[in-house]
Amino acid sequence: MPVKRRPGTRVEPESVSELTTERLSVYLRCLEGLDRARIKTVSSRTLAEHLHLNPAQIRKDLAYFGEFGVRGVGYYVTELSRHLRQILGLDRRLSVVIVGAGNLGMALADYPGFRREGFEVIALFDTAPHKIGGTSRSGVPVLDIAELKEVAAREHVDIAVIAVPADASQSVAESIVAAEIRAILNFSPGAVRAPDGVKVKNMDLTVSLASLSFYLAQGTNGQTR
Amino acid sequence: MPVKRRPGTRVEPESVSELTTERLSVYLRCLEGLDRARIKTVSSRTLAEHLHLNPAQIRKDLAYFGEFGVRGVGYYVTELSRHLRQILGLDRRLSVVIVGAGNLGMALADYPGFRREGFEVIALFDTAPHKIGGTSRSGVPVLDIAELKEVAAREHVDIAVIAVPADASQSVAESIVAAEIRAILNFSPGAVRAPDGVKVKNMDLTVSLASLSFYLAQGTNGQTR
Repeated sequence: MPVKRRPGTRVEPESVSELTTERLSVYLRCLEGLDRARIKTVSSRTLAEHLHLNPAQIRKDLAYFGEFGVRGVGYYVTELSRHLRQILGLDRRLSVVIVGAGNLGMALADYPGFRREGFEVIALFDTAPHKIGGTSRSGVPVLDIAELKEVAAREHVDIAVIAVPADASQSVAESIVAAEIRAILNFSPGAVRAPDGVKVKNMDLTVSLASLSFYLAQGTNGQTR
Repeated sequence: MPVKRRPGTRVEPESVSELTTERLSVYLRCLEGLDRARIKTVSSRTLAEHLHLNPAQIRKDLAYFGEFGVRGVGYYVTELSRHLRQILGLDRRLSVVIVGAGNLGMALADYPGFRREGFEVIALFDTAPHKIGGTSRSGVPVLDIAELKEVAAREHVDIAVIAVPADASQSVAESIVAAEIRAILNFSPGAVRAPDGVKVKNMDLTVSLASLSFYLAQGTNGQTR
């Protein structure tokens, strides 16, 4: 498929930002909804209205990966969904481990959305002897962190999630890197460092509360209901 | 402060999207980092490079709320941070309750980022008799869901977080609405419905994994390291 880019805006794949990939994921969610509603085609303008985004931004995001739109028609919903799943790497099963079998780790291990989207949580890891050997409610086993490297190699683990207290997060990140896992989702507060070639995404749950705070603040000013 | 808008792109405050408010929150996080590094001014271009965003998008997002930039200087870091905190409603303490004292609820009650940003989790609510009367590790009390309305009125609760299984989420949302809480952060899979005047934000943790999946997929294709 030919990749169309505007002259003068050449972008290296490395520079596709997390905000862009999150938008792609949001487009995919919306398209899957349209698909379930048996809607066949959608324009960037309609997508933009659904998502409160600029149509030009949507066209630009999608054009970066190929020529998906058809003039006078828009996008074919099923086809674009399939392409986005492919671009996002969601067309295959991804193997996930979670380090930290506390409340957050256990909650994430049992999070129903992960499996639905093709992410399989194969194990939790911890250092606490009383946790090792147990399982999460849905049956994910808790293993000794000492086994991480061996399990990662045997099971081809794609992504490690850090769900330990802040003071342990950097040393956990180093164990993950040593186990040759190439993608880290960090729920611990504060950023963790990893060498080039390992992608770290720091989750900040306060961003979602801030978005509600905005709504309440505007409401207080009488600007929204 | 005068609000500058492009002619022909008049936007109602209601239509400021969640993606925009999340970008504002990301700008704020970046500006706070610059502020700690004692950097006084920053251009939209430099901000854009930090965040892998389009400078025009940043200028547009900020211009919507007022004329913050100074020609030839850029933005004053401390001043813009303060304005963004105000716009996001983060210049005051917000009172939060969490419904569901399972693993996720307990993890959220003890999440250190919330308090740092001015969100105070004042109580967890549950229906299970063996949980009621207990506390989270950091001391947030678990109360009977039957007390929600009374507590919400007495403590002026701003935001309720839903952390219950999917099959209970809609009835919990209705209890929250009945308690006259106007903002809901829903961690249960599947959207919950609420009447006009109540803002619901559905959190989808799979979006963050999808962003890592994209990186791995591109890497597998040899397009990134």
